Amino acid sequence: MAKLDYIFQKEIKLKAKSRGFHLVTDEVLQQISEIKEVSVGFLQVFIKHTSAGLTINENADPTVRDDFESHFNKMVPEDQPYYKHTLEGSDDMPAHIKAALLGTSLQIPITNGRLNLGTWQGIYLGEHRDHGGSRKLVLTIYGEKK
Amino acid sequence: MAKLDYIFQKEIKLKAKSRGFHLVTDEVLQQISEIKEVSVGFLQVFIKHTSAGLTINENADPTVRDDFESHFNKMVPEDQPYYKHTLEGSDDMPAHIKAALLGTSLQIPITNGRLNLGTWQGIYLGEHRDHGGSRKLVLTIYGEKK
Amino acid sequence: MAKLDYIFQKEIKLKAKSRGFHLVTDEVLQQISEIKEVSVGFLQVFIKHTSAGLTINENADPTVRDDFESHFNKMVPEDQPYYKHTLEGSDDMPAHIKAALLGTSLQIPITNGRLNLGTWQGIYLGEHRDHGGSRKLVLTIYGEKK
Repeated sequence: MAKLDYIFQKEIKLKAKSRGFHLVTDEVLQQISEIKEVSVGFLQVFIKHTSAGLTINENADPTVRDDFESHFNKMVPEDQPYYKHTLEGSDDMPAHIKAALLGTSLQIPITNGRLNLGTWQGIYLGEHRDHGGSRKLVLTIYGEKK
Repeated sequence: MAKLDYIFQKEIKLKAKSRGFHLVTDEVLQQISEIKEVSVGFLQVFIKHTSAGLTINENADPTVRDDFESHFNKMVPEDQPYYKHTLEGSDDMPAHIKAALLGTSLQIPITNGRLNLGTWQGIYLGEHRDHGGSRKLVLTIYGEKK
Repeated sequence: MAKLDYIFQKEIKLKAKSRGFHLVTDEVLQQISEIKEVSVGFLQVFIKHTSAGLTINENADPTVRDDFESHFNKMVPEDQPYYKHTLEGSDDMPAHIKAALLGTSLQIPITNGRLNLGTWQGIYLGEHRDHGGSRKLVLTIYGEKK
């Protein structure tokens, strides 16, 4: 039985990305080296925005991210006649919906000082605005300290 | 380094809402004043239903919520020929699917006694039934007590 | 006020399932009897794959799961002309997108040694590959030990 005794939180920024799906595992991990101090616990990643989302998916072939973008654009198209919230541009309302479909946070197990991801899993940022700019994340790790 | 030492849980009810997306941040926070006792941690919100969901999105312009409802109705239409689960009404099966797309729980960071949400973020209830009635939430806060 | 002092983690395998949505509450609970030792806390379920997802939905009528599968197949169809990631078969790229729509993890409250689910809620595995094989889950429980 492990003892739950540790929590550490910090806010980071991701560099501005183009519209689309981006693998950000390394960019996140480089800013939270405290993970290695946790024997068993979690990394929680929370995005403080409503037009970009987070998910976990395939970390190898970049065409997977291209296909995500193509399909999300088809599933949540721009300029639909029923959209009322149009003042911020054609990309804005779809971005809100796409962000909600992906979700705002991830909770990833930590085991022996490392994220316990599957072999093919990585952290995705879904950047749904044409010019979303830098995105703020709250990173929180908690669990048993080594 | 903060110490993880505190957990508090309560069950609340949200007042019955019309079908659609509703901003419920204040209705939730009014029932969980213990957040202010947490220096660093989380609020977890869990909905005990399968035809309503939770997400975080834009807290300002109410037409964003209207557009969510319009788009979800298009993306998950009623009365599709392949639906077998039809006994509870045309709104029922789409409500189950919409709830799964949004998700059943939220995990929001707490920093210095307040939810650490982005400026434009609020808690949404997706009420997907025509007459869903009151909805039960389990609220749990945990982290370091001030 | 409860004391947050306990965390326990284990990795399990779910038996191979056919493509579709499956109720796996019992298969999960049989492998994590430690839940009964927690007075207040959480079970976190994390799937270590990118072509199968987890959600919570209706635990009674099996046609609900059939309708989920039918609708997900319509919402994320195979063989779209814009898919580039096609080498692993027609079912592969849609499986990645479906998994992201459902999500990779669940965080379920524990109250008095039991999952605090609603009456009609159960844990779903969305198996989105034709032959996905056995799926690995990381189960973590944490909270106040009884």
